[in-house]
Amino acid sequence: MSVEKPVILVTNDDDITSKGIRVLAEAMQELGEVIVIAPDRPQSGQGHAITINSPIRIRRSRVFDSLVAYETTGTPADCVKLGKHLILKDRKPDLVVSGINHGSNSAISVLYSGTMSAAMEAAIEGIPAVGFSLANYHPEADFSHTVDYLTLIARQVLEKGLPKHVALNVNFPARVEEPIKGIRLCRQADARYLEHFQQREDPYGRPYYWLDGEFVNFDTGHDTDEWALANNYVSIVPCKTDLTAYAALEELKTWSL
Amino acid sequence: MSVEKPVILVTNDDDITSKGIRVLAEAMQELGEVIVIAPDRPQSGQGHAITINSPIRIRRSRVFDSLVAYETTGTPADCVKLGKHLILKDRKPDLVVSGINHGSNSAISVLYSGTMSAAMEAAIEGIPAVGFSLANYHPEADFSHTVDYLTLIARQVLEKGLPKHVALNVNFPARVEEPIKGIRLCRQADARYLEHFQQREDPYGRPYYWLDGEFVNFDTGHDTDEWALANNYVSIVPCKTDLTAYAALEELKTWSL
Repeated sequence: MSVEKPVILVTNDDDITSKGIRVLAEAMQELGEVIVIAPDRPQSGQGHAITINSPIRIRRSRVFDSLVAYETTGTPADCVKLGKHLILKDRKPDLVVSGINHGSNSAISVLYSGTMSAAMEAAIEGIPAVGFSLANYHPEADFSHTVDYLTLIARQVLEKGLPKHVALNVNFPARVEEPIKGIRLCRQADARYLEHFQQREDPYGRPYYWLDGEFVNFDTGHDTDEWALANNYVSIVPCKTDLTAYAALEELKTWSL
Repeated sequence: MSVEKPVILVTNDDDITSKGIRVLAEAMQELGEVIVIAPDRPQSGQGHAITINSPIRIRRSRVFDSLVAYETTGTPADCVKLGKHLILKDRKPDLVVSGINHGSNSAISVLYSGTMSAAMEAAIEGIPAVGFSLANYHPEADFSHTVDYLTLIARQVLEKGLPKHVALNVNFPARVEEPIKGIRLCRQADARYLEHFQQREDPYGRPYYWLDGEFVNFDTGHDTDEWALANNYVSIVPCKTDLTAYAALEELKTWSL
């Protein structure tokens, strides 16, 4: 009996040449037929941006020796759309994985994250999806401790599926001396950036601004992704595409509208 | 006794010269001290993108005769950050309003919408916020039927505040013959785009692609934003920045992780 291998679409937001997507694509080869469709330039912080004010270019990529790979001028969300509607067309991917992001996407970062937007785009389309991120921004970060977890989590998602319109946000602690303690299922922490803008001056005397800030955790719960990462666990937060604040709906009913 | 007027930050994603932001800024003058900080170019579909790979420029805008206004190279979310952290600095806005978007941001569009991302950015920062959109893409769309609702809703938000990390997604039906029936508090409909890519060829024989598609409502509920708009009501969906799928957390506990 021949069993068709699952098709796994791999994307990211750091760009197709980054170390993280290479680690992820290689790990996924153990589980299925891998196709890489990723941005040809850094798309960090792109959130759920899609390209509608300009056209998109696509070309075959030579970045991966033995994999079918495309690089595009699109955003991470665009890459998933291109995979489903154009490149794979007659076959819906069985799984979309995004990352491994160089840098954490825990807590509120999920909203800014191109990595997670690719996964959420898949969830909109009813495709099981996972975004993977490492709490280390370095281009040469050590991903070796993530590999077993990548296949463990992706295999479970392929086997069990995910609830409708839900994607997983998986974050890995940066490599430390002690080994990872395991996986925690978490809620999104109430943590965010305390920000400011750095003002600089160009050679012509005109000001320009860089967003800068530090990440602060306001959440004291032990059930959050921030707690898990700080305590050397892999965090998994299931995220949904329905943003409705159902509890707030009740409160609004008391208004004079 | 002198009472300080509330500070209302107005932004959008269509760009500072669009008709919708003018209607909104003018309506808000009735309620407080208005400052406009908006993109200097179209930013539709930008989702929750922020500018971190390039610096941001800001300049005073002459688009509004009698209002303090700035145009920036940033995204809608950047504009809110610039308002809070740089331009207003010593005074947090009392309300952030975004729009009026030329085009609906109901259902899943909330994830792609720069208009709503500006409101969500404010919600992250604990500032009451509302995104307003009209179900008509035309640059010269008729907004006259929205004005009374803009002030009604904004006034209520100023008076009552909003639950923590919640912003309102308000959509108006396009102008039709019969008058608007009123306001409905709604959940986000399970409706999305059925998409494809148009392939075209540039003068040099190379292909390029445009995202195209039609919006389809899969949701038969009468409590959704899509139902409200189709039945000539103004829809209000409260949206939260916590994406955790709490119901899915329970299901994941049964996995072998």
